[in-house]
Amino acid sequence: MTTSTSAASPSGADERPYSPGLEGVLAGETALSKVDGANGRLVYRGYRIGDLVERGTYAAVANLLWTGDWDPAARLATGPVPDVVLTTLRALPTTAKPMDALRTAVSAWGATQTLDWPPTAEQARALTAFSPSALAAFARIREGKDPIEPDPSLSLVEGFLYQLKGEKPDAATARALDAYFIVGAEHGFNASTFTARVITSTKSDIVSAVAGAIGTMKGPLHGGAPSEVVDQLAKMGTVEHAEEWLRGALDRGERLMGFGHRVYRAYDPRAAALRKVAEGMEHKPEWLELAIQVEDVALRLLAERHPDRPLKTNVEFYAAPVLMGVGLSPDLFPATFSLARDAGWTAHVLEQAASNRLIRPDVKYVGEEERDLPA
Amino acid sequence: MTTSTSAASPSGADERPYSPGLEGVLAGETALSKVDGANGRLVYRGYRIGDLVERGTYAAVANLLWTGDWDPAARLATGPVPDVVLTTLRALPTTAKPMDALRTAVSAWGATQTLDWPPTAEQARALTAFSPSALAAFARIREGKDPIEPDPSLSLVEGFLYQLKGEKPDAATARALDAYFIVGAEHGFNASTFTARVITSTKSDIVSAVAGAIGTMKGPLHGGAPSEVVDQLAKMGTVEHAEEWLRGALDRGERLMGFGHRVYRAYDPRAAALRKVAEGMEHKPEWLELAIQVEDVALRLLAERHPDRPLKTNVEFYAAPVLMGVGLSPDLFPATFSLARDAGWTAHVLEQAASNRLIRPDVKYVGEEERDLPA
Repeated sequence: MTTSTSAASPSGADERPYSPGLEGVLAGETALSKVDGANGRLVYRGYRIGDLVERGTYAAVANLLWTGDWDPAARLATGPVPDVVLTTLRALPTTAKPMDALRTAVSAWGATQTLDWPPTAEQARALTAFSPSALAAFARIREGKDPIEPDPSLSLVEGFLYQLKGEKPDAATARALDAYFIVGAEHGFNASTFTARVITSTKSDIVSAVAGAIGTMKGPLHGGAPSEVVDQLAKMGTVEHAEEWLRGALDRGERLMGFGHRVYRAYDPRAAALRKVAEGMEHKPEWLELAIQVEDVALRLLAERHPDRPLKTNVEFYAAPVLMGVGLSPDLFPATFSLARDAGWTAHVLEQAASNRLIRPDVKYVGEEERDLPA
Repeated sequence: MTTSTSAASPSGADERPYSPGLEGVLAGETALSKVDGANGRLVYRGYRIGDLVERGTYAAVANLLWTGDWDPAARLATGPVPDVVLTTLRALPTTAKPMDALRTAVSAWGATQTLDWPPTAEQARALTAFSPSALAAFARIREGKDPIEPDPSLSLVEGFLYQLKGEKPDAATARALDAYFIVGAEHGFNASTFTARVITSTKSDIVSAVAGAIGTMKGPLHGGAPSEVVDQLAKMGTVEHAEEWLRGALDRGERLMGFGHRVYRAYDPRAAALRKVAEGMEHKPEWLELAIQVEDVALRLLAERHPDRPLKTNVEFYAAPVLMGVGLSPDLFPATFSLARDAGWTAHVLEQAASNRLIRPDVKYVGEEERDLPA
């Protein structure tokens, strides 16, 4: 909590609350999710994230976020990519960052849509369905391949992988990625979601909101660095070498990627849900197998070093091996995180619009006093 | 001031300050501008907006915002539009909203740039220079015309008008639009600028920040409706009919567009600066001539109706006739406002990055208590 009130002064000093970073300031209300970091709990509309991963699908979770209704049979497939967007993606440099490509694709898509106020669940659904197709198209185009048309019989994550690779994923692979999409779908007023709500609060459209949110998530202080978890796992190589490597890293004062979280003081419930899915797989991708084994060693070592308050596993520790395990290249991780978060972003857009109020803070002026221009 | 603290309760109710809309919360610091609504004053880095319009240029003002230095000889021309962006703009529907086209063009441009952290004044300059060329290109493409290459010998607003229309503007036209760009360049923590700062605070890039800001300004609660001022002026037609029309509108309880402002209780200093430029012109565009005459009548009537606190002229009252006067179609007004604000947005990006702190408020949870999924 950094809110403070500057002292009044005879010169009329500002008495408004000063809260740079807005940490601890409740900037609005939501019924979408509750993040209880102290106790390591996360619910979407009251339902525990572990239950949602165990018994739900991304389609059901997205529908829950948009409508408030739990329909385990809800369906959501990838959507078509209009020619405008394909032309744009083909024109981009092959070296363009996938987040830049996704932001541009979403923005161009918006220019083709009629997006009247207020935003609707149908708009949310269409944008969430379009985005995986666009990212998959860019990933193929940059490799000199043709984009693949959506197959409406597939789920959203199956369709995404199919349009990325040209073949349909096996059930375990699809299940792992679907679980990742569920745990990534929503997480309160993080910076990108807050951006989407600020944009919506001016009565702008859902695409402007999501394009802004993608740009926010692009920042490493938000989107994180899941690929660094993979880098560390790659350095260990095998579980046999993990303990030696981990001890060395801790001795050198290096940070273990995938442990510790700004909000979660307890075990991140999203990591727990992803681990559970991984453990239940008959044939695990090798990255997941390695992650499970390394985690146990890392937690033991962290508890040895910091017996008072050991660092706990966070979601990135399992997100990274899931994404590697389903065959995504690390430079696609942040954009894939955005695809998952589309459900939450768009749900926040709907929620903001439903009881809208312009989000417009003030700012503390610390510049020059009024003065004359130099002669 | 809407900040309040919820009462503590035995169940551990949230005691964090609750401030939906963040009105009156100082969410950061700035040395770029001070908006003193009570006294109708606006300074950029301490310099009065009236002085800046009278003696400065948009190039000098942008340079002042980026660097802190006042250099009246500073130059800023429009920049080139890469083929990627032209291809994208050509692919867009001709019916696309100019704000959607500008957001997409900026986003696509970003995908072609190397934008390492921290953002730089050179990045700010390049983006501010690129944007008018992109908007002009879209405006021509949608009319079936070819885009026009930038002429580096022209100022930014001259270049914008030249690339829009194919002929160089006369001095008075360029001066009027330059004045509009100066008064539109910066205005504290409005919603779009705040969006740019939230995006930057994750260490994302300057293009992501400005693309988000454009999306925010697109909302009618922010970008306003300058074209409505033009509609009202058009209804009056001539100053002779103005008083009758204005009296009728006030009798019907209609709002006079261009009067009253959320922040300015006194006369909006940006309107004053624009009027002064208009009055100094030997040959005024007819829209400006009409606006000047109508304003006097409107202020007299508003003072008659509300002698205790008459509404004062705001910037839109002169922005709209300036933009009409230089030959812009009303559907280009919001995007042209964005071009002007590029200087301020990018200056805020630089300022945020220079002493960065993640902007990440909390949210009040008002949803369902933790519950089981239906069986």
